[in-house]
Parts: sequence; C-alpha cells; structure tokens
Amino acid sequence: MATNGYSNGGSTKGKPIKCKAAVAWGPGEPLVMQEVEVAPPARMEVRVKVLYTSICHTDLSFWRGENERQRRFPRILGHEAAGVVESVGEGVEDLAPGDHVVPIFNGECGTCAYCHSSATNLCGTYRVDAFKSTMVSDDGTRFSVVNTSGDTVPVYHFLNTSTFAEYTVLDAACAVKINPAAPLQKMCLLSCGISTAGVGAAWNTANVSKGSTVAIFGLGAVGLAVGEGARIRGASRIIGVDINPEKFAKGKEMGITDFISPKACGKPVHEVIKELTDGGVDYSFECSGNVDVLREAFVSTHDGWGLTVVLGIHPTPRMMPLHPMELFDGRRITGCTFGDFKGKSQLPLLVDQCMQGEVKINFDGFITHEMPFSEINEAFRLLEEGKSLRCVLRL
Amino acid sequence: MATNGYSNGGSTKGKPIKCKAAVAWGPGEPLVMQEVEVAPPARMEVRVKVLYTSICHTDLSFWRGENERQRRFPRILGHEAAGVVESVGEGVEDLAPGDHVVPIFNGECGTCAYCHSSATNLCGTYRVDAFKSTMVSDDGTRFSVVNTSGDTVPVYHFLNTSTFAEYTVLDAACAVKINPAAPLQKMCLLSCGISTAGVGAAWNTANVSKGSTVAIFGLGAVGLAVGEGARIRGASRIIGVDINPEKFAKGKEMGITDFISPKACGKPVHEVIKELTDGGVDYSFECSGNVDVLREAFVSTHDGWGLTVVLGIHPTPRMMPLHPMELFDGRRITGCTFGDFKGKSQLPLLVDQCMQGEVKINFDGFITHEMPFSEINEAFRLLEEGKSLRCVLRL
Repeated sequence: MATNGYSNGGSTKGKPIKCKAAVAWGPGEPLVMQEVEVAPPARMEVRVKVLYTSICHTDLSFWRGENERQRRFPRILGHEAAGVVESVGEGVEDLAPGDHVVPIFNGECGTCAYCHSSATNLCGTYRVDAFKSTMVSDDGTRFSVVNTSGDTVPVYHFLNTSTFAEYTVLDAACAVKINPAAPLQKMCLLSCGISTAGVGAAWNTANVSKGSTVAIFGLGAVGLAVGEGARIRGASRIIGVDINPEKFAKGKEMGITDFISPKACGKPVHEVIKELTDGGVDYSFECSGNVDVLREAFVSTHDGWGLTVVLGIHPTPRMMPLHPMELFDGRRITGCTFGDFKGKSQLPLLVDQCMQGEVKINFDGFITHEMPFSEINEAFRLLEEGKSLRCVLRL
Repeated sequence: MATNGYSNGGSTKGKPIKCKAAVAWGPGEPLVMQEVEVAPPARMEVRVKVLYTSICHTDLSFWRGENERQRRFPRILGHEAAGVVESVGEGVEDLAPGDHVVPIFNGECGTCAYCHSSATNLCGTYRVDAFKSTMVSDDGTRFSVVNTSGDTVPVYHFLNTSTFAEYTVLDAACAVKINPAAPLQKMCLLSCGISTAGVGAAWNTANVSKGSTVAIFGLGAVGLAVGEGARIRGASRIIGVDINPEKFAKGKEMGITDFISPKACGKPVHEVIKELTDGGVDYSFECSGNVDVLREAFVSTHDGWGLTVVLGIHPTPRMMPLHPMELFDGRRITGCTFGDFKGKSQLPLLVDQCMQGEVKINFDGFITHEMPFSEINEAFRLLEEGKSLRCVLRL
C-alpha cells in the first residue's frame, strides 16, 4: 500500500496521508491540483487509494454550483472510481487492506429496515444525498488543505465518495469489494450512471422483458446505458430520442434501433412512437432532466401497462405536468436511484458475471477518453462540451 | 323471463320490451320514472332484467352535469346492479337467458391485446369511458322514449351499463355471470366501487400484505371498501382520514383502527401519520378527488417503498402537485380502475369465495338503505347529503 510519493513511508495505517487531489474552490473555477491531507478512517470507515476515476454530469453540476445548496467549497468532487483499500477503521469486518473496491454514492449498511427490505436500495443511513458534505459518523471531514492564507482548512466531501483524490475516505457502507481480477479502469464505470444506473434501470426498475419495446429520452451516457440494459434483455425495439442528431451514430453503435429527432420529426414525439410501436412502448426512460420531456416520455408508453422510469435530475421547481386522471389509463411512473441495485449485495455478482461473459456490458463503448489525473480540467471541458461520454482518469 | 307488466307477453326474445326506467332529462332535474322501449340485444349484446341497483357518486356527478362533457340527455344512468339475462344477441356464447349477472362498467372482451395482458384490466374495446353514451357496435342506443312533444327520441346509455331501468342492454363483455345462488341484492355492490374498486385496490393494485400499514384519505364507500380489503389482508393499522368526523363511527365499525381529522389535528396529516407509523404507511389510498389531498396521501407513505393508489375522480384541470425529484425517494403512485379486477375472468371466483366464507366482505355494512326503485330521487338525495353509503333499490 501507499506507494505514491506522498505517503509517510512504511505503513500508513492510522496516520494521515498527504497526497494530491483536485480541489474545487468555487463555482466554475478550474479545479486546483494540490496537496491535501487525508485523515485515517474513523470507525466503520475505510481509506482507499483511488486508481481510476471518471466524471459524470452530477460532478459538473456541483462544480458549477448551479443552485445555492450545491455551493460548499473547498470540496473534492468525483464519485465514479475504482481503487484499493489502504486501511480500515475500527469495526470494519468485510473489507481489508488490499481489497479492490468501487465506491458507491448510495451506500448499503446492511442492517437497517431499508436494507432489509427487498423493495428499496435506499439505505436509511448512507443513501445518496448530494447536499451532504461531511462524514456520517461525526459530521466532520477527512480532508484538509492549507489555503492561500496559510491556514489549514477542512475540505468538504461529496456524494459519499470524493474520488478526485489519490486517497479518499469512505464509509464502509459505500465501498464495494469486487473480484480482484476485474479490470479496475472499466469497473470504475459501475460506480454510477454509466453501467449501473442505466443498466439497472432497465433490469431492476423496469424489468425490461424479451421482445418488448423501449424509448429512451436523452442519449447521454445514462441513456445509452439504458439502451445497453434493454439490448441485453432482448428488447425488440429500442428507440432513442435526442435533440442532437450527432448522438445517433454512437447510439446505433451501442444497439439502439430507431432514432427520433424532436425538432425534425414534424409532430409530437409520442405520436411518432405510437405509430412505430402499435400504440406506445412498453417502457420509456427519461434521461434528460426536463419536465416537458418527462411528459412526452410518459405519454409515449402504451396505455394499460406502460412504465416510465425517471433518471434525469430535474433542477427546476416545476412540478410534473401529469393530471391525476391520466393515471387511470394504466400508465405508471417511477424514479430510479443507482439502478435499483443494492450496491454491496449485488454489484460483486454483476462484476463476476461481466468477467465470465454471462453479462456483456460494452464498457469500452462508454469510455471515449483516457487521461492522466493531472488533466482533469481538460476532461471537465470535454464532458461540458458534449465531446466525451466518459473520460477515465488514471491516478 | 319477462314477467313484469311491461313485457309483450310470452317470449320477449327478439322483440322490444316496454318497461319503466328513471330517465335523466337535464342536469340536476329529478329523474322521471317513465315508460321506455328497450330494443333487443344486437350481436354480442345481452338484454338483462335488472333486479337491484344502487347509486354511486359517479351517477350523481353525471346527473348534475358538473362539466360540459357529462351532459348528454335524455340518459339512463346507473351502473351498480344485479339481474338476470332475458335474451342474448347473435354470437353470445358465454351467457344464456336465466343467467344471473352483474353488469360491469369496465368490460372484458377476452380477446384483445389488453385482455391477454396480465398487466391491465382495461379492455381495448369495452374499457370504462364515462363520456361514451352509445353502444360500441353501432354507436346507437337501445333505449327510446316518447318525449313531451310526442316524438320518439333515443335515450343515451351510461358507463356501459345504464341500470336505472327494469331492462337494459349490455355488451356481453360487460355482463358477468355469477353463481345463481348468490344473493343479488348484495352482489350488486360488486358492480362498482363498494366492494370491487375498494377491495380490489387493496388486493390487486396495492397487494396489501399482512402486518402492513395503510392510510385511507376519504371515508366514503370506496374508502371504507379499501379498509375492508386491507382488514381482510391482515393490515396491522388502518388509518382513516376525513374532514367529516361523523364518518369515524362507521369507519370503526368497518375495521378502521385510527382516525385523523385534518381540521383538528393541528399539523399536516402526513406528519401525524409518520409519527403513528414510524416514518409513514406502506400504502395510502386517495379516495377524495382532491389534488391537495392526493399530495398528502403521497407524502404520508414510507420512503423507499410507499405506494399511493389514486381512486378519487379528479374533476379539476389541476395537475398533480408532485416534483419529479420526489420520485427518487422511492415512493410510487398509481391509478386503479375497477380494483384491477378483470371482471369476467375474476369476479365469478370472488362471488364463490364470498359465498363459501373464504372471503368475508361485509356487504351489509355498506348497505345503509333499501328502497323500491320508485323512490330513486329520494335515494339520490340521501347520497348527496352524505346520509347513505349505499342505498339498494329493488326493481
């Protein structure tokens, strides 16, 4: 462990580690690659050496500080990653130094009423909370940094993960031990939206069945991952909808069968979909974060049994434009967090299935760029400009 | 068959029948008990002698003509009933004269894609459509009457049923053959909201489980029937919410365990419910037709797995006051038509189960009044004033 130049030499267990991190100091300001101190893990926490991390739109949104509640600086963002456990805090029994792990923003303590319920993957204690910026156990941070005035100040956490750092501290509930033979640069995509949220939405939330029809609104990484999940399940028709037709080529490569460009199709998208599918798709997935699109997704499903899964993050205060009586047509709508996977219980099996070829997720299709960690600001720019699906950073 | 004074003597098959009906001539005008002519059933239709009918709020709403689309007069209202088949039209194979039947407003043809799907009870052809006022086969009516000018005019149908008449014509898809030993004056409650919608909402839509917790918003007949369904399923706590505390005595008698009066509880109802149930109920049922109540019902459920079932008819154009991000808390919401029973396939078994005591639905608890058909205007008044749950009329 602790082989980088910033470790304290020898065993680092129980000691602070100085390492590099990309620190966000203010909304939209370039991340600063600088030395931070990472405290040892407290009870039921683990310290992880991050080997790969990638960037998701949620990172962008909090970096920009699009709304007031997102602004908590200095902060270490990042939530898609893979790494190796450096040391574990008191009480941690399921993880040990050297274990390969992926951090998960939606934890699983395994003991609360939620974790005991098969109906939800929202843990009572460690569920996703994008506005939380400290550790659960003591409301403190494990990162600190010397600011420009020479003072040591705490650096806030993000999404239970904070992976834009060479070392990070996670609640043990938010670290999933996986097969050590799995390629970590790909597994880091299981941390979040790419494979997990999208594929899980198709498998767990919607339970897409063989021969069924699917519409995906928004062909970013999550939308493409939904398509991936639907393709693996044998959906007969996967319709991709996006205002940017440049996304269709990648969509086609990833197995989406039909494409609709709302600005070019000359009528409401749901009418086009109903014509294509004899009355509507069995499942629609809203991956755009726009409530008008959400409505189109809802009415694009077949009455009687259509299900709309909402994956998009909706930043506006606008309510859902659905009338209660519309529910009587038998269409349903539901949200989906982390693909309805229970992370610690279910991801290890998924990793094994991917390795054994039982499940063929096209990880390579999502990884459009790879860079060293030092180029993180360039990676942000690529994602912001829509030029990358996922850029994996090597630490 | 055809033993009443208005029949044409001998066999009435294939001939018009003159009989009494309660005809609605205009919004809110007293129904006129008068002679109507009932045509023989056309292909795939049956003519039924109605023996019992009761009144539901949907009848009241269309009688009042609360919105423009409801106003189609003259019309024969009524949709909860039980009777005997008088004759069948060409092609009808599953029903014969003498069969005991309950009409259903949400038909089941048994052959369309919807009927073949286990996911819905909405038939492609005969599903509920409150605004439809003619028969499916020819868009015509089977009722006619002589108006005050001496002209013979068509009388419109209602909800696939029109049971406020001694004889009515139904699509065979909307007539359920039941055990002839079942007491028809009770079975008429299976036609609609009382037992079917409410009990079915608890059983089929929500699938209420033993030991679970339930909140019911609106303690009219449908709400009480939900309570009945939840009680039979072994719910541990059934919380009734109503602005009229006079309804609590009946609710208690019917098995509801706790009561909340929104005007008297001093805080939002959902807060009271969360305190009573350690975080929220497993299932809530909205039986009020008010969107603000719908929101309370939604947020009264437990995050992670709570399900809200909407049963209320919402007449206003107001959209659901729910934000898309609220779906990520794992609460779900769904509509429910006819208790998600497939009428022709499933009601006969329910009737048998009731008769054998396997299912103990408290029909008598719902029947607060019984009257002759001639007093139908008085029965309307009782329901309007909230003095009756169900008044069964004998024809």
